[in-house]
Amino acid sequence: MAKLIECVPNISEGRREEVIEACVKAVSTVPGVVFLNKSSDPDHNRTVLTLVGNPEGLKQAIINLYETAVAKIDLRNHQGEHPRMGAVDVVPFIPLQEVTTEECVLLAKEVAEEVARRFDIPVFLYEDAAASLDRKNLAAIRKGQFEGMAEKMKNPQWKPDFGPNQPHPSAGVTAIGARFFLVAYNVQLGTADLKIADTIAKSVRAISGGLSNVKAMGVFLEDRQIAQVSMNLVNYKKTPIYRIQELVKAEAKRWGVPVIGSEIIGLVPQEALLDSAAYYLQIENYHPSLILENQVAEAAHE
Amino acid sequence: MAKLIECVPNISEGRREEVIEACVKAVSTVPGVVFLNKSSDPDHNRTVLTLVGNPEGLKQAIINLYETAVAKIDLRNHQGEHPRMGAVDVVPFIPLQEVTTEECVLLAKEVAEEVARRFDIPVFLYEDAAASLDRKNLAAIRKGQFEGMAEKMKNPQWKPDFGPNQPHPSAGVTAIGARFFLVAYNVQLGTADLKIADTIAKSVRAISGGLSNVKAMGVFLEDRQIAQVSMNLVNYKKTPIYRIQELVKAEAKRWGVPVIGSEIIGLVPQEALLDSAAYYLQIENYHPSLILENQVAEAAHE
Repeated sequence: MAKLIECVPNISEGRREEVIEACVKAVSTVPGVVFLNKSSDPDHNRTVLTLVGNPEGLKQAIINLYETAVAKIDLRNHQGEHPRMGAVDVVPFIPLQEVTTEECVLLAKEVAEEVARRFDIPVFLYEDAAASLDRKNLAAIRKGQFEGMAEKMKNPQWKPDFGPNQPHPSAGVTAIGARFFLVAYNVQLGTADLKIADTIAKSVRAISGGLSNVKAMGVFLEDRQIAQVSMNLVNYKKTPIYRIQELVKAEAKRWGVPVIGSEIIGLVPQEALLDSAAYYLQIENYHPSLILENQVAEAAHE
Repeated sequence: MAKLIECVPNISEGRREEVIEACVKAVSTVPGVVFLNKSSDPDHNRTVLTLVGNPEGLKQAIINLYETAVAKIDLRNHQGEHPRMGAVDVVPFIPLQEVTTEECVLLAKEVAEEVARRFDIPVFLYEDAAASLDRKNLAAIRKGQFEGMAEKMKNPQWKPDFGPNQPHPSAGVTAIGARFFLVAYNVQLGTADLKIADTIAKSVRAISGGLSNVKAMGVFLEDRQIAQVSMNLVNYKKTPIYRIQELVKAEAKRWGVPVIGSEIIGLVPQEALLDSAAYYLQIENYHPSLILENQVAEAAHE
């Protein structure tokens, strides 16, 4: 199988169609890169692009994106509900196939170095690429936003990993990093009692004593009049979906509440579901090489 | 996604390495065809080849295979434990992706017509491609084997679907058809009592009142000293694996016996496992388009 990385750049433009299209064109015309999706929000004045490709292709696509965005987006005239600090606000690289987190960190650093050099923009490395713990969290880096960044960067704690010690006049600063694939997974409960969903969310999420790599909160679904445990799974390999599903079921039992369904928001890597199939079917010899399509892909690349 | 068909030709040669290699070369040098595997059995004096490809490529590969096999294999000198009637004994086409059974039947008929015309070999269509019920079953067609075929074909009931009314002198007759992907799936029981495995097998298999598309028998595993329900699933779409697993568990409960594991023999299409994941995780909005890899494949083919 070929090396495959996902990249989800966020740009600070969600209104001007011609600028958004120019950015899509910049990333989608590179060999080895497949453009999957764009999602623009005019209120946020922000667009999220989804790309998949090999490391070399993605590097070129992201450099192209900075070139276009820096030319067309001026943060001095930018307003929107979503916090932002740069024309290209944040660029995460996500390992998908035949690629390690370490390779994505390396790619993030290569791209960061070139972005700083070519466009004179300060770059902060974040998440798995962060140089120190206080830079892992994107929100901490972005605090103060574009308008407060010049002042913030006078503090040596906020010297960027690459590039100058002050923001680019129009393009601000940018964060580039590596993180794991995020699965958005919601479990529907057979109750209208939001307090039960909240209690289950607290029981299963990492921060309050539950499973690692799980973020959760209770949500009430108006249209169905039921409560839901809404979750972000930040590492489906270390904390597989079936474990979360079974724990939610076990916690719900405490209230005599059944799980009546679940849903995946966005996309899920097939491995995340195949691991759950192997668990429930109790397959002793499960291995990705048992999957016909993997054999075909393997043979086709030889 | 591209059209993808599996083809598993069986040839009557499992000993002479140079003949087997020539046959592999004949099928594996065609654009649009990926050669996955060969499995030779000297006792059976038979080799099973596994190919995957698009319809046009597979048609060419199979014509090439007949050309090579007819030139190099003479059934008058062939001995082996496995029943056989032709140099190329049987060729099934199996729908994998973006292809219907009907398209595989059409492909089988096209190949059959050309094999008969070019090599003067009688061809019987079987399984989903069969012209009548008594020709669905390959064993019925092959009964009498190479040595008895000239006599058998004097009966108008055994006039071939294509080609002459008597066997080819050295290459015999051949069967070409279409069938569904077969999944070999075994369930391990927490008991050494083979009678319990036999009873469960009878309860779950189609022929004795169980699930459609399931063949099953009890087997004793000497090395582990446990009994197993050994199954062939002849249509994993209509009768998904989770349904079989849950029914085996339910029948085993009757004896207080737990299911301690399962195993997949050979390969399984990913869809067969993804469907089971969707069942157990209760995913309300499950659809193959939720799978990241499918989106990538889709986009790459646009």
